[in-house]
Amino acid sequence: MRISFPDGAVREYENGSSALDIAKSISEGLARKVLAAQVNGQVWDLSRPIADDATLKLLTWDDAEGKSTFWHSSAHLMAEAVESLFPGVKFWVGPALDKGFYYDMDLGDRKMNEEDLLILEKKMNELAKQNNPFQRKEISKADAVKYFGEKGDEYKLDLLQNLEDGGITLYSQGNFTDLCRGPHIPHTGFIKAIKLTSIAGAYWKGDEKNKQLTRVYGVTFPSNKELDEYLAMLEEAKKRDHRKLGKELSIYTMDDDVGPGLPLWMPNGTIIIEELEALAKETETAAGYKRVVTPHIAKESMYLTSGHLPYYADSMFPPMEMDGEKYYLKAMNCPHHHKIFDAEQKSYKDLPYRIAEYGTCYRYEQSGELFGLMRVRCLHMNDAHIYCSSEDFANEFRAVNDMYLKYFKIFGIDKYVMRLSLHDPAKLGQKYVNEPQLWQETETMVRKVLIESNIPFVEVQDEAAFYGPKIDVQIWSAIGREFTLATNQVDFNSGNKFKLSYTNQNNQPEVPLIIHRAPLGTHERFIGFLLEHYAGKFPLWLAPVQVKILPISDKFMDYAKTLLGKLKNADIRAEIDDRSEKIGKKIRDTELLKVPYMLVIGEKEMNENKVAVRKQGKGDAGTIATEEFIAAAVHEIKERI
Amino acid sequence: MRISFPDGAVREYENGSSALDIAKSISEGLARKVLAAQVNGQVWDLSRPIADDATLKLLTWDDAEGKSTFWHSSAHLMAEAVESLFPGVKFWVGPALDKGFYYDMDLGDRKMNEEDLLILEKKMNELAKQNNPFQRKEISKADAVKYFGEKGDEYKLDLLQNLEDGGITLYSQGNFTDLCRGPHIPHTGFIKAIKLTSIAGAYWKGDEKNKQLTRVYGVTFPSNKELDEYLAMLEEAKKRDHRKLGKELSIYTMDDDVGPGLPLWMPNGTIIIEELEALAKETETAAGYKRVVTPHIAKESMYLTSGHLPYYADSMFPPMEMDGEKYYLKAMNCPHHHKIFDAEQKSYKDLPYRIAEYGTCYRYEQSGELFGLMRVRCLHMNDAHIYCSSEDFANEFRAVNDMYLKYFKIFGIDKYVMRLSLHDPAKLGQKYVNEPQLWQETETMVRKVLIESNIPFVEVQDEAAFYGPKIDVQIWSAIGREFTLATNQVDFNSGNKFKLSYTNQNNQPEVPLIIHRAPLGTHERFIGFLLEHYAGKFPLWLAPVQVKILPISDKFMDYAKTLLGKLKNADIRAEIDDRSEKIGKKIRDTELLKVPYMLVIGEKEMNENKVAVRKQGKGDAGTIATEEFIAAAVHEIKERI
Repeated sequence: MRISFPDGAVREYENGSSALDIAKSISEGLARKVLAAQVNGQVWDLSRPIADDATLKLLTWDDAEGKSTFWHSSAHLMAEAVESLFPGVKFWVGPALDKGFYYDMDLGDRKMNEEDLLILEKKMNELAKQNNPFQRKEISKADAVKYFGEKGDEYKLDLLQNLEDGGITLYSQGNFTDLCRGPHIPHTGFIKAIKLTSIAGAYWKGDEKNKQLTRVYGVTFPSNKELDEYLAMLEEAKKRDHRKLGKELSIYTMDDDVGPGLPLWMPNGTIIIEELEALAKETETAAGYKRVVTPHIAKESMYLTSGHLPYYADSMFPPMEMDGEKYYLKAMNCPHHHKIFDAEQKSYKDLPYRIAEYGTCYRYEQSGELFGLMRVRCLHMNDAHIYCSSEDFANEFRAVNDMYLKYFKIFGIDKYVMRLSLHDPAKLGQKYVNEPQLWQETETMVRKVLIESNIPFVEVQDEAAFYGPKIDVQIWSAIGREFTLATNQVDFNSGNKFKLSYTNQNNQPEVPLIIHRAPLGTHERFIGFLLEHYAGKFPLWLAPVQVKILPISDKFMDYAKTLLGKLKNADIRAEIDDRSEKIGKKIRDTELLKVPYMLVIGEKEMNENKVAVRKQGKGDAGTIATEEFIAAAVHEIKERI
Repeated sequence: MRISFPDGAVREYENGSSALDIAKSISEGLARKVLAAQVNGQVWDLSRPIADDATLKLLTWDDAEGKSTFWHSSAHLMAEAVESLFPGVKFWVGPALDKGFYYDMDLGDRKMNEEDLLILEKKMNELAKQNNPFQRKEISKADAVKYFGEKGDEYKLDLLQNLEDGGITLYSQGNFTDLCRGPHIPHTGFIKAIKLTSIAGAYWKGDEKNKQLTRVYGVTFPSNKELDEYLAMLEEAKKRDHRKLGKELSIYTMDDDVGPGLPLWMPNGTIIIEELEALAKETETAAGYKRVVTPHIAKESMYLTSGHLPYYADSMFPPMEMDGEKYYLKAMNCPHHHKIFDAEQKSYKDLPYRIAEYGTCYRYEQSGELFGLMRVRCLHMNDAHIYCSSEDFANEFRAVNDMYLKYFKIFGIDKYVMRLSLHDPAKLGQKYVNEPQLWQETETMVRKVLIESNIPFVEVQDEAAFYGPKIDVQIWSAIGREFTLATNQVDFNSGNKFKLSYTNQNNQPEVPLIIHRAPLGTHERFIGFLLEHYAGKFPLWLAPVQVKILPISDKFMDYAKTLLGKLKNADIRAEIDDRSEKIGKKIRDTELLKVPYMLVIGEKEMNENKVAVRKQGKGDAGTIATEEFIAAAVHEIKERI
């Protein structure tokens, strides 16, 4: 059989060889690292025989699917340990997460506590060392029902109800057997470092009318080093928790009478918002965008046209009924922007037509899902839509990528990846709009631009939007936590739906392609990210208070005020610490507020028109002439250093 | 009896003298101009005897109440003319308006047309010249019912149902008698110029289930000169109609799928919005305001606390029901701002605490009331709230006034008046919050500041807000049309309702006074006003396109592009007219778009690095060096000349 590899190589193997056989044929070192394999786009056990010609990708810890398989197997390992310590326990589901895994279980009348987690960890380590293989077994539905019926396991019986005969499998390792579609890693020995992180209650099927199960969260790694790094990162992330910093630095507040998930931005947070918007406006204006302002509501008819209703209704706020019409809060800005495109006749000379708005959208999230600034119901979005011809598309898409890279540089985001979601040709006309040629063309163009721009990206099959390929942008904070920043979408459907058109060079009407893009995501999520990323120590241009003047005693208040006037004239956000406190305390308190520069002033500074500069976190930076400091600060702000 | 005049003078008159007697005693010239009199705060007929000591203000055409009386009398004059031409007509009500008057009438099966208006005008002029006095007659309810019953006038009988015996009066002039509480001008001869402007249908009592009456609108003046000026102003206003200009200049658009009263701001309108916001931010920052951003929705509980629910519910959008709670779109920003004040403990050192937001509010208006940008459902408001101690109040209020004056200067608003609405002490605890001392103090302070600031103002009794005195700001556009720009309110109630407090210098909790202010009103109304005020010819700093480059031929396109780059570098909004049109046509088209500067470039300009400048509406302004033009334009923009 012919096996095609991701680098384009094709090699011959004996029919029925497994991915592990193939890995071994390449190198023993590789074979020791491989966790699973992607065969014709599906993730498989390494040991499963490949019957015929196929595409093959060997998955290691470095692949998202490799990690996911590893953690799913770790959930089984934990279940085995739980069963040995809590005989008779019944299991519901145990999936892998973005980071780690959990398993929901019914312990009967028993309770699990933090100490149990340590005992379980120990047991898991013991079982892992046994290198027990994960074994796959196909089973008929009847046999599976019989097996779990005899065990009295109502949970697995419930799961079986929704499974069709023919595709049902059991997986076993050591003394544990589970109903599971797999895949799994070859054996438990790969799991070298284990941390069970927490216990929580979870209603069966998420319904509070059902029984509450016990959910145990954990995370595992192929080495202790990685676990240690992860735990150190968690510790640091706790210190940088955006909710904690958001309160300490007076960035935002929440209020019960306003409602959950609806942050109120306090003056300090608003300064950051305004600086981000100024950056966006400057960048977008230079890139030829125009700006618009649209209402936060629209009639039902607009969302029926766009297709958001009824399909997206669950994520929208409920309607307001007025004058016999239903009005909805907007959950996205696109339909309003399409209406602006459509308000005046366009020709090819008006294209690409790029309109931007920091539009505020409202999306319904379950209250249990809300989380600080990260998961909210009110979103200030760095939105824009580009209406262009298919000839312009590649250039426009490249310019959008360049804008991302520019922003990444400004914010010191060193690690990022674009996740390109593609369509599945088999689902055209169902899951995907039936435009085979446009799919082909745009996917090829997007891929080409990503390669040419040297942007790290991964491709994901069958996860595109209904109307075109989608690019999710993942970024990592300074401490290595991953965030989804934004989504770009290519859209060759809305133009038709909204009957948008322009007159092309042959004087014929043509429907524009649309690019949806939001490089700075939403203020909520991005400022939440920045709080963690900078640990609240914002660069000068973003800092709510940029300079604090610390007079050594009240004697120097007049000089402090003169200095304040000079700083304000230079558009520097400055304040005086006018408390009658010792200078040591003033410095310590200002450090806590993470103000980038402190100017200590006393007799000498006053007489010589100088300032003694302290830099946040770095201490004394020498005494320099006032005008020199101002010029340097203005430069630092203007260049967003 | 002792009569007190507005200037503080007090003079003795015989008991039973009328205001006309008193006017005559002052000067015959005055007596010829006086239309009515304000006696102890109530407007009276001039001829009505004054029984005892009183305050007296003689009202002329220059007083709002004088005009109002004049137009009310004109409605009666029109009714007399109608009755003579349409015998048997029955009249409903005929009030004075801000400008002019109307009368609703039942013509039976007859119809009135535009030609009839001319005939009526002629008849009215004839009757006016008869100098027929308006005569007041007190009548018992029984006699009045008998009188109108015999006439078969079901409309006046309906009005009589709601009148109490003892205060019912009839007014007659010439052959016409009407049920009317007055007052009226002395005689019809004051009405020298008459224009009946339109006929409309109006359902009786505004209910479409009732009969449709005929409504005739008119306006009258004490001289033909004033009528001519008014008609010229209307003609000019038509040319400057903000809906017409808004479309021609691509400022905003409306869309059926978005909904009525919800403007979408196109790129040109958004530039004006952003310039206004930049002005507000600059001005407010200099005045010590901080900025905040708040959500557009809140839970019902917040509006129950504020008292907007249930009292203001009709002006709010209907609620969204979610998670068992009701959420409302905000119709005002104050409650959200109060929550931000309350988010952190405040001391006297934090006051005055001034927070500003161009907050977007949503208010329900009947769809029939909506009108372009003037009456909308979505309002971007130049809002701010000042929380201060009572000692700070006068200074804060003065600073707010200064800000108005600064804005008036920038926008060339020469005519303005502040309308100070005061409480009625008799209604404390009912219509007004029961804080007699605070009412007294704040009203005195507000009046004092208005006088000291030399701001023209009028006082209105018994029209304050529930929680404090109110100032409505009226401005006049360049063509003399009046607009209500904004409302300022003093609020000594919300602090209590929201349990706001700060620690005073004695370390005791104290409730702050709150000033609500919005000098630039809403973007919608203010930009609507500016379109008329400037006739779309915005000053340079506000103009969407500031400079248009007009190459004489395609040969000069490269130089045009170099020039464009230089202008953009200087942050000047510039475009090239790159059409292959004759220069004359380019100039004409650019004039229509009301671009402030055109730079015509040809051989000579290119060779000498110069530009031939044309100023909008003023033609050729000479040829100058490019850098010189740029420096001048930058100055004009920066100084908002």
